[in-house]
Parts: sequence; structure tokens; C-alpha cells
Amino acid sequence: MDFEWVKNYLEKNNSGASSNDIDSMPFAIFEPLIMSGLKIDLIKRGRVICSMKVPPRLLNEDRSLHGGATAALVDVVGGVVIPTINNATSSGVSMEINVSYVDSSCVGDEIEIEAKTLRVGKVVAVSTVEFRNKKTGKIFAQGRHTKYLVVSMERYEETITIYIFSWMSC
Amino acid sequence: MDFEWVKNYLEKNNSGASSNDIDSMPFAIFEPLIMSGLKIDLIKRGRVICSMKVPPRLLNEDRSLHGGATAALVDVVGGVVIPTINNATSSGVSMEINVSYVDSSCVGDEIEIEAKTLRVGKVVAVSTVEFRNKKTGKIFAQGRHTKYLVVSMERYEETITIYIFSWMSC
Amino acid sequence: MDFEWVKNYLEKNNSGASSNDIDSMPFAIFEPLIMSGLKIDLIKRGRVICSMKVPPRLLNEDRSLHGGATAALVDVVGGVVIPTINNATSSGVSMEINVSYVDSSCVGDEIEIEAKTLRVGKVVAVSTVEFRNKKTGKIFAQGRHTKYLVVSMERYEETITIYIFSWMSC
Amino acid sequence: MDFEWVKNYLEKNNSGASSNDIDSMPFAIFEPLIMSGLKIDLIKRGRVICSMKVPPRLLNEDRSLHGGATAALVDVVGGVVIPTINNATSSGVSMEINVSYVDSSCVGDEIEIEAKTLRVGKVVAVSTVEFRNKKTGKIFAQGRHTKYLVVSMERYEETITIYIFSWMSC
Repeated sequence: MDFEWVKNYLEKNNSGASSNDIDSMPFAIFEPLIMSGLKIDLIKRGRVICSMKVPPRLLNEDRSLHGGATAALVDVVGGVVIPTINNATSSGVSMEINVSYVDSSCVGDEIEIEAKTLRVGKVVAVSTVEFRNKKTGKIFAQGRHTKYLVVSMERYEETITIYIFSWMSC
Repeated sequence: MDFEWVKNYLEKNNSGASSNDIDSMPFAIFEPLIMSGLKIDLIKRGRVICSMKVPPRLLNEDRSLHGGATAALVDVVGGVVIPTINNATSSGVSMEINVSYVDSSCVGDEIEIEAKTLRVGKVVAVSTVEFRNKKTGKIFAQGRHTKYLVVSMERYEETITIYIFSWMSC
Repeated sequence: MDFEWVKNYLEKNNSGASSNDIDSMPFAIFEPLIMSGLKIDLIKRGRVICSMKVPPRLLNEDRSLHGGATAALVDVVGGVVIPTINNATSSGVSMEINVSYVDSSCVGDEIEIEAKTLRVGKVVAVSTVEFRNKKTGKIFAQGRHTKYLVVSMERYEETITIYIFSWMSC
Repeated sequence: MDFEWVKNYLEKNNSGASSNDIDSMPFAIFEPLIMSGLKIDLIKRGRVICSMKVPPRLLNEDRSLHGGATAALVDVVGGVVIPTINNATSSGVSMEINVSYVDSSCVGDEIEIEAKTLRVGKVVAVSTVEFRNKKTGKIFAQGRHTKYLVVSMERYEETITIYIFSWMSC
């Protein structure tokens, strides 16, 4: 039982100057941090392909794309494909995300992220997100994303809208 | 089909000065960004509880904790609980992560993240991660994390170690 | 590439007499097949515990509880816990199920299945389901189940009800 | 809180004669029950397509294909695609299964189940499984299956083999 290692790992980011830099980072920097550099290769009904170069900022300690960053990209790209079908100007609230990691992706690798809708209903939408190495075509991660479609709902019923906003409101 | 909205959303972070700031962010800033401020409340065999105040930097557009940040915290805290059992000084490579989001978490909320091991074998470990509002005790997300235990393996067999590193090497 | 093995495995159940027996099995026998023998140990608000003895009929070729049967039990017990909160007389339509298998369960083992609700809203409910060996207390599987609450919806709005039934209707 | 409904639902299969019939069902009937009628349309390296007619025996109370049966089919077909790559005569032990249900499938519908491998390593394999209505081509469920490759391992190392069998042995 290596409690010391766990303690050091969890607290490593809480020391002094660097911590202050992070605490003062701007509102909602998380999304720009994971998305900056993302380019659109294709937008079609129910399908979006983006590409990016794995940047140093998104690496883990093993120098490969951080699993948490991959999951966050599933969230973003898996959400953004939904309005290619339902005309909403929001992609709703996340209900569920899952990712399988089947290979690593290294700094500088050109990667391709393809999202497809499995279902876009009035209340719920589901999409799949696949990560490939652009050069080799090899899949390195695949995920699914289920969203609750807030904006679509607003058009339907007041009662439910209220409920939804009680879910998501901050 | 609102292709314009999708395009704007995906490319919003690629414009001018702010984009330059992000591109020049330090190596592996992703983990400090999500973990800074995380405090340890409990470390026991097979169980870790951390807490943090939801920071402005991790919000989404709805001003609640970004689903991608929550997923990244499942990755980190779900991984770090494993060495409380197997003495490794690494928590291995992520194989699978899933998260269900059942409520929102707002800026300034004190949250509690509890990870428990479901299994720590010689090759594979699985843990669960639960997110609660510290004040109300209400769960707002729950996930699971499966890891491949690289370091433990090294002790066993050369052949497999080589294979593992070919999986994860960058 | 062992195509022959795959072919034989998939078609093994399609031969002659035994196949006829199966094809003539009664309507919806699937649920009795997995649930027969299930006893209730506890019903509380948001929590149900059942137990059963792993029966020979639910084994796989390795003589342990079939992973598909475990998943089916997540579906059933994860669904049935929802009406302990929302008073519905249906537990809705399955949207998502996931299961992690962390140990095997053998024929004759007394097992305990505990379902807890994570959220029961007006439209969607999420529950967790944990499988334990009753004697050792050891977890052998854990899953999550997301359901769409059809019946609750009916009370709210005609339009959405129609949509829901177009989803689920047979 | 409708405890009575829950109680009746869980115990409905434990009454008298029909229960006896089920308890006396043959060893491992579960797999034939879900697979009988499954035909192979295609076997290629890393890809298997099967089809079947949704049988009355696999329905739920809403008269659509039972979610638990779909999950069990993910287990079976997601496992069987692995030996198209690794030559094993076993597809290993299930580690994780997940399924998203996006539409219903009705009795008599011709359905198509397509499994593809995402990764077949020496220790772990991951596959995806997609369910489509054969006539309309519409996806009604999609899942993922992670397996631990027992048989491949045996070739490598005694120590680990022992460990694996302690996981799975019954």
C-alpha cells in the first residue's frame, strides 16, 4: 500500500507559484484548452470529422494524449454533431459518456476525430466518437455520448422545461 | 441542420491571441488544470476521498462543471486509488472510462470525489468514482475506470512487458 | 484467423431437435429464465436487494454465470428499483446499460444483487447494480442502468407521449 | 413508492409449476436461448455479421426485444469476432460490456448484428457490436465488449495463467 505515492500525486499540483497561475486561469478555459487547434474536415448531416495535432499541453506523464483529454473531446465533438440534425443551437446536457482506449497517441501525431449520431430524438440524443491516427488510420479510442436535449424541449412544454433547468441550472 | 453553429463552436478557440496563449501552454498542463486545488480527505486501503471547490476555469458554457473535466477527474482519482492496494508507483494505462451525469455542479460548490477499488489484479484493475456535493451529500456523477497495470507486469514477464510498452510508448 | 471455430460456435445452436425445442419456447420466456429463483431481501426507498443461487441454466461454457445473464439482471433489477421512488407501475425503457465483470460466480453460489437509484427524475432515471457473493461479500460485477420514464411522461404531455411510443412501440 | 409493484414484479416468476419448468432447464441453456436462429452472413478478419428474426421468446413486456437479450448478444457476438484475428479457440473472459439502446426492435423483425474488433492484443481485446433493422438499415442498439484473452495467455507464462484461472475458475 503506497499511500505516500498517492498523496504526492494528488497534491503535486497544489504547491506555490504554479498553483497560483492555474487558479487565476480564465473562466471556462477548460474547453479552449482541449479544443484549440481543432480543425473541421467535414460537416454533414449526422457526421462531423475534425482533426488536430496532439499538443504537448494535453499529454500525460507517459507523454501520450491524456485519457481525460480524450474523454473531454468525446464530450465536445460527440455533442457538436447533434445540431447537424436537430437545428438546435445547443447540444444539450451530458447524461453519459464512455470511452475505450485501445492504443496510445503521441505528441505531434495528427489525429482524426469522427462523431456520428446514433439517434437524435426530441428529448435524448446519442452519438459515437472515434479517434484515429490520421497517418495510419488506426483507431486509438472509441466512445459514446448521450445527451439530454434541453433546447428542443423548451419548444414543447413549460413544466418539463422547468424541471430540466432545475437539473442543469447554476 | 445548423452547420454554421457547429462550425463556429468548433473553431471558436482558434482565433488570434487567445489561441496563441493556449498553444504555448506548458507540457502536460492538462492534469494540473483539472487537479489544482484537490485536497485529500482520506486515504485507506482501496479507498480515497478528495475534495475541491469547483473552480471557474473548469466550467462549461452553462456555468456548471464541464462534463469533460468530470470525466478527466474520474481518470485521475480512479487511477490513484489503485496503488493503495498494489504498491505500484504507477496506476497503469487507461483501458475504459465511463461516467453518468445525474445533476449539475456549480462554481464554488464544495465537491467530494470518492474512489473505491472494485478489483486490483496483477494485470487489470477496476475502480469506481463517485462525485457528491459536500454540503448536500447528493451524488452528481458516478463513473468507472478500468486500468491496465503496466508496472506490476514488469515484475512478471519480459515478453508481455515489451508488448505493453509497445501499446503505451510515445 | 480461426473462421471455422467462429462458424461452429455461432451455428452450434441451430441443429435439429434441440433447436426446435428452443424455437417453440413461450413468449417472453427470457425474463423468467434469468429471474426464476430471485428472492427479495430488502425493499426501501431507492434501494432493492435480491438474492439467488446461480442456477445451472445460466452458466457459460466455463461453468460460471454467463456475462449476458449478469447484464440482463442489471437490466431487470436496475429497472425495478426506480418505482420505489416514483410510484410508477413501469420502470421505463432502457437507454443504456454497462457492466464491469471483476470476478467469476460459480454454479450454486448464493449471490446478492443490490440496486440503488442515482437519480429518478421526471424523464430519466439512473441506477447502479452491484453483484456480490453472499458468503464472502466480494463484488463480482457492477453496472449502471439508465432508463427513459415512459409512464411518468404520459402524465405530462401528449406530443411527447406520442414520440415516446413511437420509440418503444411494437 | 410502489413497493408492491416491485415485489410482484420480482417474484412473479417464482410461482408453482412454471417455476419448476424453468428450474429444470438444461445446463447452460441461456446461450442457446439467445442464439438459436442466428445465421452467419459474413466472416472476415476482424468482422462478423449475423442475422436473426426477433423471436417471441426474447421479448419484454412491451413486446420488443428484451434489453437484457440485446446485451447478451453483445457478449456473444462481440466475443466471437476476436478469434477471426488471434486464432484462439476461445474468446476469453468478459471484462466490460456496455450497450446504448436507441430504438426498439419488434417480434419478427429481421435484424443484423455486426461485430468489429477495435483491438486484439495478447492480453486484452475490444470489439464493437451494432444492431440494425435489416429492412430499414436503422441502428437500434450499439455496444462495446472488452475481453481478457485467457487462452492466448496460456502460451506465455505459467504464473499469469494460474492467476487468470483463479479469476475465472468454477
